[in-house]
Amino acid sequence: MQRPKEYSQVDKEDISHFQSFLSEAEILSEAEDMHDYGRDETEDFHFQPELVLKPSSAEAVAQILAYCNKRRIPIYTSGARTGLSGGALPVFGGVVLSTEKLNRIIEIDERNLQATVEPGVINQVFHDACKAKNLFYPPDPSSWGSCTLGGNLALNAGGPKAVKYGVTNAYVLDLEIALTDGSLIRTGARVLKNSTGYNLTQLMVGSEGTLAVITKAVFRLIPYPQHDRLMLIPFRSSEQACAAVSAIFQAGITPSAMEFMERDAIDYTLKFVDGVQVPIGPEVAAHLLVEVDGNDPNQLMDECVKIADIVATFDAGEVLFAESAQEKASLWQLRRKVGEAVKSHSIYKEEDTVVPRAELPALLKGVKEIGHRYGFHSVCYGHAGDGNLHVNILKNDMTDQAWEEDLPKGIRELFSLVKQLGGTISGEHGIGLVQKDYLDIVFSPVSLAMQKAVKAVFDPNAILNPGKIFPET
Amino acid sequence: MQRPKEYSQVDKEDISHFQSFLSEAEILSEAEDMHDYGRDETEDFHFQPELVLKPSSAEAVAQILAYCNKRRIPIYTSGARTGLSGGALPVFGGVVLSTEKLNRIIEIDERNLQATVEPGVINQVFHDACKAKNLFYPPDPSSWGSCTLGGNLALNAGGPKAVKYGVTNAYVLDLEIALTDGSLIRTGARVLKNSTGYNLTQLMVGSEGTLAVITKAVFRLIPYPQHDRLMLIPFRSSEQACAAVSAIFQAGITPSAMEFMERDAIDYTLKFVDGVQVPIGPEVAAHLLVEVDGNDPNQLMDECVKIADIVATFDAGEVLFAESAQEKASLWQLRRKVGEAVKSHSIYKEEDTVVPRAELPALLKGVKEIGHRYGFHSVCYGHAGDGNLHVNILKNDMTDQAWEEDLPKGIRELFSLVKQLGGTISGEHGIGLVQKDYLDIVFSPVSLAMQKAVKAVFDPNAILNPGKIFPET
Repeated sequence: MQRPKEYSQVDKEDISHFQSFLSEAEILSEAEDMHDYGRDETEDFHFQPELVLKPSSAEAVAQILAYCNKRRIPIYTSGARTGLSGGALPVFGGVVLSTEKLNRIIEIDERNLQATVEPGVINQVFHDACKAKNLFYPPDPSSWGSCTLGGNLALNAGGPKAVKYGVTNAYVLDLEIALTDGSLIRTGARVLKNSTGYNLTQLMVGSEGTLAVITKAVFRLIPYPQHDRLMLIPFRSSEQACAAVSAIFQAGITPSAMEFMERDAIDYTLKFVDGVQVPIGPEVAAHLLVEVDGNDPNQLMDECVKIADIVATFDAGEVLFAESAQEKASLWQLRRKVGEAVKSHSIYKEEDTVVPRAELPALLKGVKEIGHRYGFHSVCYGHAGDGNLHVNILKNDMTDQAWEEDLPKGIRELFSLVKQLGGTISGEHGIGLVQKDYLDIVFSPVSLAMQKAVKAVFDPNAILNPGKIFPET
Repeated sequence: MQRPKEYSQVDKEDISHFQSFLSEAEILSEAEDMHDYGRDETEDFHFQPELVLKPSSAEAVAQILAYCNKRRIPIYTSGARTGLSGGALPVFGGVVLSTEKLNRIIEIDERNLQATVEPGVINQVFHDACKAKNLFYPPDPSSWGSCTLGGNLALNAGGPKAVKYGVTNAYVLDLEIALTDGSLIRTGARVLKNSTGYNLTQLMVGSEGTLAVITKAVFRLIPYPQHDRLMLIPFRSSEQACAAVSAIFQAGITPSAMEFMERDAIDYTLKFVDGVQVPIGPEVAAHLLVEVDGNDPNQLMDECVKIADIVATFDAGEVLFAESAQEKASLWQLRRKVGEAVKSHSIYKEEDTVVPRAELPALLKGVKEIGHRYGFHSVCYGHAGDGNLHVNILKNDMTDQAWEEDLPKGIRELFSLVKQLGGTISGEHGIGLVQKDYLDIVFSPVSLAMQKAVKAVFDPNAILNPGKIFPET
């Protein structure tokens, strides 16, 4: 991408300035040291940063923003760079602001079932620290072992548990954010309900580092459910599997996970992951991985029986119950590794479509039909209970020309279908770099203009994550 | 209040213009007909509108906005006017835009557990329509029999069920809004998770009609819980009652309602409401009204036993279980009527404080201590499980001077305490007219400036609900 000429290049004087308030360990300026900060988990993109800063305090973050704002140096806030939409990529160079040293769990408040954290805390580390106190922080993206809470907030991340417990924005109560003018403000309060001024907290969540930099977050927590049951259900038809999903919810059951995997997804993953074995007959086209949780094991058993009865009417095969903690862990590992496994197979593009859940069969049918016309193979899986289908488009033996010139038209058709079904183009991965050219499908010009005007309020010099979200940037 | 001179007065030409696209029944211009649109449920305020418009379509709303924006005529969007912060009061005259004819439940989508409504639908009407299909829309303000969903969205309204199920913003997926330039845009999609652009949906919720006018809303619904148990628990000390609240949550129980009522609140209400009788010993200082719900009656009984054990350690008296549907309805009526009953007693001011729930005893103690110093009597009740305490300050025999000059200082002290406890000044009633002078307590000047700049993006001529939320308007 061409760096717009209004941005300054980082020079020696800039580095001297940063050295005046950051330690040596907080500044990287050697190309080799900075290399990894130029990529995330999106396709094979790499953009070299000009400087990497790793501040250890909110105040230092604010100082960096104020300085870069004055100098018009782009700032790319960076967590663990596990993103799938290129949101953290420093496409115009500039400064990568890594949150890796802002990684303290400041407090887990057991009296109020709340926690205060810095943005660089790893999701699973936080989850486990809460669990040790019998408290539950539900959002759990597949990358939870490495992704950060700041990144989760930036993208409004989900994960399997979202179907029952909601995504990241359902847990955040208050943020401390650094603004481009160098101030730090709080957006909310440590309260479960708030009708005081505009909801800047929710405006920040999902804004992909384009409005401000999150320096602290207060989350609400809930009691950890004491029991769960996990079942893997094979189907002879993918569309039947998707249809079963909404039937289960219509029966009044809210599973704590409801994951869909096409046959290819599970086959690729079984080859990719060591030590997980699942017997799959040749007739199986797709699986649902369904979990129920709660405090009463008998009620969970009842729910499992009801689910088994429902899926039987959708031509399901024999249900596999995970009997031990180890079996549960294996099945979850299988699901969590699907993305990596599928992507190891070929050059790929991943779409993060989401529709009302009963429209999943229509979406899946549409994906295959569009793929047939454009000559691409797709592997689909995702959070079916939320209507969130990850469509992995594999290049395989498509020509470069078909991949680069025709495929975008196919994706545009796919997203138009998603819109027509009442859905939108990203459920949990964000728009970032790779989806921004499709934003006009779901937002009118007026809506986009409003969003850009809001951006200008917070970031008048467009230094925060430039080149992202909006089509022409 | 003095109407700023940049606003135009409604004249005959304006009325002719509105007559060009609105029917006779959609325009009120006689003082008598308009009188009721000049008040809500906040103290005894009345501001006469210059014109009342009752459009029946989103397009007509948009046309009204475009015209008033050009002419700089203030627009006060008005639902059922049950608000408690003066949010709907036409303080500068202008046009009251009533949503009463936008009252259609457009769809209850049983396949997707979603509903699409217009803003003038009454909360309880919607609740009951959902319940008839075994679906649950939980937000239920005390005024649910008359308040509208549009008003609920404008204030991010709560209610007793919020403690388990969340407030209004936890249910809204998508909005259609009319902007001041006369366009209609959608803010979201019909999906349970969304990481596509800025969250304008959540920015609108709680913005009190100052940014746009909501013309349609899509809500998610959940399965209706099949059973519930309701218990009234007397305490010898209000602070002990409040302390019991957080102990119950810490034990891993999430009640579906957890309401606190001071002795005075219940005494006033028993006199105010016909046909409800509750035996209360002279030693009782406060009650908790606690409900649990779910699909398994045995589990609910277990939870009730656990709750009874916990409250016993806080010096609770004998727990009263509601045994029949009628007894439940009586106890709920008692709780829902507290506000009206207390206010019928004296000139009053109502504060809507909210703190982290374990800080409730400290808040209650502070309220009484501040009241003692400023010479006011307060009656407290509210959604204790959410840390949301409604503080009704009664004038009784305070002098007018003490009421008008000293009391605001007392309220400022109270709100400063709330802030210090990690809370904020409105949990569910909004800022509106009566709390705006206290907003500086919870927001820094920079935060207020950002909020006002966001307002200017959507409403550059400040025609939407002027005189509200921000201190100097």
